[in-house]
Amino acid sequence: MSWLISPNLALDELVAQRRAAGESIVHLGFGESRLPVFPGLVERLVAGADRNAYGPVAGDAAVRSAVAGYFARRGLPTDPEHVVVAPGSKALLLALQAAIPGDVLVPEPCWVTYAPQARLAGKRVFGVPIPAECGGVPDPDRLRETIRQARQQGYDPRLVVLTSPDNPTGTHAPPDVVKTLAMIAEEEDLILLSDEIYRDLVHDPAATPILSPAELARSRTVVITGLSKSLALGGWRIGAARFPDTAWGAQLRADVTGYASESWSTLAGPMQEVATYAFGEPPELLERLARDRGLHRAVARAMYDIVIHGGAECRPPTGGFYVYPDFEPLRETLAGKSVVGGESLQRHLLENCGVAVLAGVHFGDDARALRFRAATSMLYGATRAEQQAALDAPDPLAVGHVRAALDAVEAGFAELAGLSPCHPPPRSPALTGTPH
Amino acid sequence: MSWLISPNLALDELVAQRRAAGESIVHLGFGESRLPVFPGLVERLVAGADRNAYGPVAGDAAVRSAVAGYFARRGLPTDPEHVVVAPGSKALLLALQAAIPGDVLVPEPCWVTYAPQARLAGKRVFGVPIPAECGGVPDPDRLRETIRQARQQGYDPRLVVLTSPDNPTGTHAPPDVVKTLAMIAEEEDLILLSDEIYRDLVHDPAATPILSPAELARSRTVVITGLSKSLALGGWRIGAARFPDTAWGAQLRADVTGYASESWSTLAGPMQEVATYAFGEPPELLERLARDRGLHRAVARAMYDIVIHGGAECRPPTGGFYVYPDFEPLRETLAGKSVVGGESLQRHLLENCGVAVLAGVHFGDDARALRFRAATSMLYGATRAEQQAALDAPDPLAVGHVRAALDAVEAGFAELAGLSPCHPPPRSPALTGTPH
Repeated sequence: MSWLISPNLALDELVAQRRAAGESIVHLGFGESRLPVFPGLVERLVAGADRNAYGPVAGDAAVRSAVAGYFARRGLPTDPEHVVVAPGSKALLLALQAAIPGDVLVPEPCWVTYAPQARLAGKRVFGVPIPAECGGVPDPDRLRETIRQARQQGYDPRLVVLTSPDNPTGTHAPPDVVKTLAMIAEEEDLILLSDEIYRDLVHDPAATPILSPAELARSRTVVITGLSKSLALGGWRIGAARFPDTAWGAQLRADVTGYASESWSTLAGPMQEVATYAFGEPPELLERLARDRGLHRAVARAMYDIVIHGGAECRPPTGGFYVYPDFEPLRETLAGKSVVGGESLQRHLLENCGVAVLAGVHFGDDARALRFRAATSMLYGATRAEQQAALDAPDPLAVGHVRAALDAVEAGFAELAGLSPCHPPPRSPALTGTPH
Repeated sequence: MSWLISPNLALDELVAQRRAAGESIVHLGFGESRLPVFPGLVERLVAGADRNAYGPVAGDAAVRSAVAGYFARRGLPTDPEHVVVAPGSKALLLALQAAIPGDVLVPEPCWVTYAPQARLAGKRVFGVPIPAECGGVPDPDRLRETIRQARQQGYDPRLVVLTSPDNPTGTHAPPDVVKTLAMIAEEEDLILLSDEIYRDLVHDPAATPILSPAELARSRTVVITGLSKSLALGGWRIGAARFPDTAWGAQLRADVTGYASESWSTLAGPMQEVATYAFGEPPELLERLARDRGLHRAVARAMYDIVIHGGAECRPPTGGFYVYPDFEPLRETLAGKSVVGGESLQRHLLENCGVAVLAGVHFGDDARALRFRAATSMLYGATRAEQQAALDAPDPLAVGHVRAALDAVEAGFAELAGLSPCHPPPRSPALTGTPH
């Protein structure tokens, strides 16, 4: 078997290498919240240092309790026995795909990892286009049609992966769409894997009604979350899953725990200590989370304005730190630059404008589409001091290095529209820094 | 699909539950080095706390360099480009089994995880009995015969998993056996997965010649190691793999890295910091390792004396913290207690004598065999203070709680032989403590 490295991780490594070689690149190609670790989390890491025994595969009672409380506060009462923690939500998603029989339905576009995981698990993947109003979910009518066709071909479409708020579009599924999908799940006997890792990064929690499919299709929804995005802990690798409170849910949890015992054994002890604290949501951590959210909102919206100004169409972002523009209105202009699809658009932006983005085709989107994901979370600064300054600023867009990066992106996108020549961005620590 | 939890992890959880309920159990059932974390490792964990970015999938340059140096000091010159680190050697072994085509040959008995991993990867598993002199390797003649038969049946036996020093037998493969196996690998076009996680726990390094198959079958051996055993870091989840310096090795490393990018992403940043220090082998860490090794040696040898005294046959342990006795000489006596195989022997020892061991059948051994693994590394104490006392003592066997545990085991095994009634061990913190 031969597998390529996940394209987002590959692009991140490529950008790091080219920056190390002296190139100026604005990195919009990687979905990482590049912000300092909250000090309270470091304290728990240290407190957990003496946890060098393996402990239970699913995580110890304290961390499972904390995760159960986290879900309960989101309308999902949870018994700690129905929780599993792991080194990242990605590991849990792979275990779930391996444990649940049948083929997989994913939104098109969707996070780069769902489809390769399905193939690793020996499944067939069916992409279903997203609706006009949001990403992260299949369009309900197209979903029904895809299931019908797949079954006609002898396949067994059974799992649907949902992401809300979404990567790559930065939008969330409105409650009525979730209700329709939950209804289809019941009608068609589907299992929903609801990836809610961005849930706490909804830009306006008070104004944004978030409905988990687990509130409706209770017996057939597994919820997956993690601390990588909301708490900027991608490099610490902490994820969790919540299983349905049914006999089937208990069996699935046992299967995933069995898989875990042959793969990662357990989440590292010090990280379990961290997770116990973080999923407990103490006030000081919620305060920090609110500041992260405000920063993500401000910069994602600024990026939205830039792509719209640059001539693209785009769903307004409502959560996370992504914008997913469509440069279809510029197709003729771009064809003159030999840009005819996602890959050539990605290459053009990297080579000619010093802007790294990930083309829609990597998310399963049409190769001809002039769409890409711009991850805005890498613009907060190359150093801890810069990141802290962006986090502390009343108006992050007025912070020098954030402004400079946005201006460089604006210049790059303006070049696409033929509005101006592309000016490679100036050398600055914000633009040429190392990954940390 | 339905999978059971790995039997060693399941037994560890069962013992913890029964102890929590007040039962006195001497726990010989889990292969964990239950000793305090070396303080220098905690310092590195703290120093690595700000590594919250994902970073390269295979591990950053510093940690891969440190691992390369570690192997170079063991006769295996290594380019950092041929190294991958991961959350545990187990995760790497699963990725390797998934990435390498063909079926799998494992020693019988062998570590509980190799065969389930092979089945997860869709492979057929062929067990090959170990030679009389040591465990962890297939008997060379039986290996040839098994390959011949498997091919006749249409299978493609291709991978051989080797473990030296070995779990469960606590023995190492002498150089001449390794040479024969390397020769067979060349003749039969096999890939060797050499699990060397116990290598630094050879009891008498000066007197024990250790030969890695990677020194001989260079182009077809992948070496796997980790810090769980040698540095008592099971709960921190740190492993590493070394790939052959060939085009095939580079492709295999790319495939394993691709798999990793869809499963665990990368080893947690703080753990990479720890691994960089640990694989660098500074003098203070080697001094601590030497003390661990002395403790493992003393207690494993004492356990060997106890099982021999109890009427069993047993290979003398030469590495790690395991003894693998065979109570075949007592078959008639044991039949009178309804003990007729590994499972009933394990149950009898747990229920009647308060001694938890893991039957040979869980390691792939014959279900009728009266064999089990006694892991001696859980006898060092239930508290950090007890463990430290065992580690610091010139004669660990004279330390009260270690002595009491060994006496309790001796009484249990004597009961098997009908030498004396079984006296349940007294309640003491050493015998009823929690896992940490």
